[in-house]
Amino acid sequence: MLDPDILDALRAIVGPGFLKTDEESRIAYGTDALKRGTPADAVACPADSSEVAAIARLCTARGIPLVPRGAGSGYTGGSVPSRGGIVISLERLNRILEIDEANLLAVVEPNVITGDLQDAVEQVGLFYPPDPASLRQCALGGNVAECAGGPRAFKYGTTKRYVLGLEAVLATGEIIRTGGKTVKNVVGYDLTQLLVGSEGTLAIITKIILRLIPRPPFQATLRATFASIEDAVAAVVQITRARVVPAALELIDGETLEAVARSQGVRLAPEGTAALLLLEVDGVAAAVEEEATRVGQACRDAGATEVLRARDEAERQELWRVRREISMSLKAVAALKFNHDVVVPKGRIPQLFELVGRLRREFRLRVPSFGHAGDGNIHVNFMVDPNDQDEVARAKAAEPALFQGVVALEGSISGEHGIGFAKAPFLSIELSPEEIALMRRVKDAFDPKGILNPGKIFP
Amino acid sequence: MLDPDILDALRAIVGPGFLKTDEESRIAYGTDALKRGTPADAVACPADSSEVAAIARLCTARGIPLVPRGAGSGYTGGSVPSRGGIVISLERLNRILEIDEANLLAVVEPNVITGDLQDAVEQVGLFYPPDPASLRQCALGGNVAECAGGPRAFKYGTTKRYVLGLEAVLATGEIIRTGGKTVKNVVGYDLTQLLVGSEGTLAIITKIILRLIPRPPFQATLRATFASIEDAVAAVVQITRARVVPAALELIDGETLEAVARSQGVRLAPEGTAALLLLEVDGVAAAVEEEATRVGQACRDAGATEVLRARDEAERQELWRVRREISMSLKAVAALKFNHDVVVPKGRIPQLFELVGRLRREFRLRVPSFGHAGDGNIHVNFMVDPNDQDEVARAKAAEPALFQGVVALEGSISGEHGIGFAKAPFLSIELSPEEIALMRRVKDAFDPKGILNPGKIFP
Repeated sequence: MLDPDILDALRAIVGPGFLKTDEESRIAYGTDALKRGTPADAVACPADSSEVAAIARLCTARGIPLVPRGAGSGYTGGSVPSRGGIVISLERLNRILEIDEANLLAVVEPNVITGDLQDAVEQVGLFYPPDPASLRQCALGGNVAECAGGPRAFKYGTTKRYVLGLEAVLATGEIIRTGGKTVKNVVGYDLTQLLVGSEGTLAIITKIILRLIPRPPFQATLRATFASIEDAVAAVVQITRARVVPAALELIDGETLEAVARSQGVRLAPEGTAALLLLEVDGVAAAVEEEATRVGQACRDAGATEVLRARDEAERQELWRVRREISMSLKAVAALKFNHDVVVPKGRIPQLFELVGRLRREFRLRVPSFGHAGDGNIHVNFMVDPNDQDEVARAKAAEPALFQGVVALEGSISGEHGIGFAKAPFLSIELSPEEIALMRRVKDAFDPKGILNPGKIFP
Repeated sequence: MLDPDILDALRAIVGPGFLKTDEESRIAYGTDALKRGTPADAVACPADSSEVAAIARLCTARGIPLVPRGAGSGYTGGSVPSRGGIVISLERLNRILEIDEANLLAVVEPNVITGDLQDAVEQVGLFYPPDPASLRQCALGGNVAECAGGPRAFKYGTTKRYVLGLEAVLATGEIIRTGGKTVKNVVGYDLTQLLVGSEGTLAIITKIILRLIPRPPFQATLRATFASIEDAVAAVVQITRARVVPAALELIDGETLEAVARSQGVRLAPEGTAALLLLEVDGVAAAVEEEATRVGQACRDAGATEVLRARDEAERQELWRVRREISMSLKAVAALKFNHDVVVPKGRIPQLFELVGRLRREFRLRVPSFGHAGDGNIHVNFMVDPNDQDEVARAKAAEPALFQGVVALEGSISGEHGIGFAKAPFLSIELSPEEIALMRRVKDAFDPKGILNPGKIFP
């Protein structure tokens, strides 16, 4: 527990109403979508970057762990304490400061909800592409800290491609500004991109300058079903060879479809479907028409059992429904989900699904898998009953086997969720001791006392 | 000068044929497109990353400056010694190792010429967009080290958007691999993007994994001329508001056009042209048609005196000719060029040209300016006769005025060329002492003895 004088100092910084020490808050801020973590010793809700800086200085001086937190929707425990300390919740920094149409950018505070920014910019004909599944709950600061992806990353790239500049507070209390409002900047090191994906271990993000693009005026959405994963993957390869870049290219396997059907009590794809592709192309009308035709043809060439195309927005939403229902539906299958977001070079998705099939058999696990096929980024879920100790043990044993298999395919153990503490034990499967040591020295350069989000990323 | 035992050790590493110590070589490798620098004490040409690592270890052990060099086409002295030492020329690492059509990537050694890679990937229907003006001379390793841009950066982004992974050698001799062959990777810190644009001060790049995209099948190229800079800039704003993203949106001012006309002995634009826009849109045929129409209309709405559209490849090359002739033509105007690549938020280009006009009058200088208007990135050139000491002094005095003015517009002092030693004295105009101190600590994390490219970036 924290000394009373520390609590007094925190209270003096944020004001008495914005320091939470009650048990309910300490537990609530001690967990995120991973559902693990330790309670916070206290939760501070600063009003601005100067209060953030004062808290950081206090924590560095007293050696207290400081955990930055946005909306708490992460899957790897990035926003929760791993060993107590202070959670600094950025919930009051939640304003869209600027939508600048002339310069195609937005300036936001970290706790703006991603979907809210998207709605706001689309109203003026602009577009912020990154679309993590949690976009109605997650905050942009967390998106930046984790480098969030989403279906549209295939065409538009992940969060990092849209971050032009940051204001951030170092553990030692300095407020720094990186990058800026220009789309090009080569002055000194690119600290902006270093902070993107640094999971709150290098600095606390207090302001974000985001690049926007014109909103694509038209979309076409298609759904193709296949009798085997191999056929679906062949279609993905065909589309790449046809040199079309869909805005989204999502793959859902049969086990996942089955879970959705059971949970919803309704069959959303023809019986015997082993894999489903959801495809969206966007752009100016004529280009959309041409690309939709080519994508549909590529699916048929690869042996699709059915290719549907949405004729209006209602049908489009209906096609996307199966994708959106996955998360809820899997919860109905089993109470515990070991949720992995492995990624391989896109041409190696067949081998990735072979690997998943092998793990399913060897470890006797349910492994519904789905995700961003265009990026080679597949969500591989080990579903377990937490009361079945043997199943839990088998799932834990399957984790390093999955990661080793992915790295052997020249892939990566995480494409979207980050490392947090959930994957920290596996870091050395992908990175060499020299690379980890170098990253630790970079961490020291930002946070000499190691107070920022300790226990994350590094094993 | 270096001790003879060091030369012996270098010779033992690279083989006697690949260590150059003759005066001609030492001088040749002591200069780049900036035309300043000090001669190398020796030039080592390693065959592979293990020889690079051995040289780095030697230099760290003996405290000898080590300057990595690609094709030597940079504008800020990044590839030349500022105080002697060893130049490590990567000229033997010049192979395209892989063009992987299934995964849309290429693996190259650092000294592959940028244009050669583009030709090779375009033959299989793929595309590597970054197109610095020097693309027939410059090397990809240098492009990565400096984060090169070019006209197509407006639509496609600069080099950083295409670098997926690197092999690099630290000053202490460790060989690290960052990123990889996947388009997503959030495992640990993004050292790949930190190395992009680090100007050879953090590590020596020995292998590059580049993302490719499908080659756009069609282009349309337009040239619009204007009676004033203001009208041309209004057209740029109109195009942004029309939500079109041309592949290129280049602006050339009247003073530059005049120089080209005089040097070529031929007028390439109507008399009285104060500004010229070169525009290119690309994509599938129907989209190109629609966007070309909208772009042409936006130019006419802004008061263009003439809008031409190339009807075939020959006419397209003719329209681009004026842009390509600029560099040569300016050499004919004056022997010395203080070549700056300032950048502002694109909506502030009118204010940037006001600033340039003020400098032109106040410091009585010829300042032909042109560049990537879509990105707000303008090449502002102070032309001087090196024998006119007063003019040289006026140009030197105008430099901080330009940089301060740009930063006041929320711009940056360099959008493409980097800092090197040419702009190092001006770094603190843009960055705070805290930010510079943080960058120095990052440098220390990579290069504890400070041997890699000393005298660059930092004042």
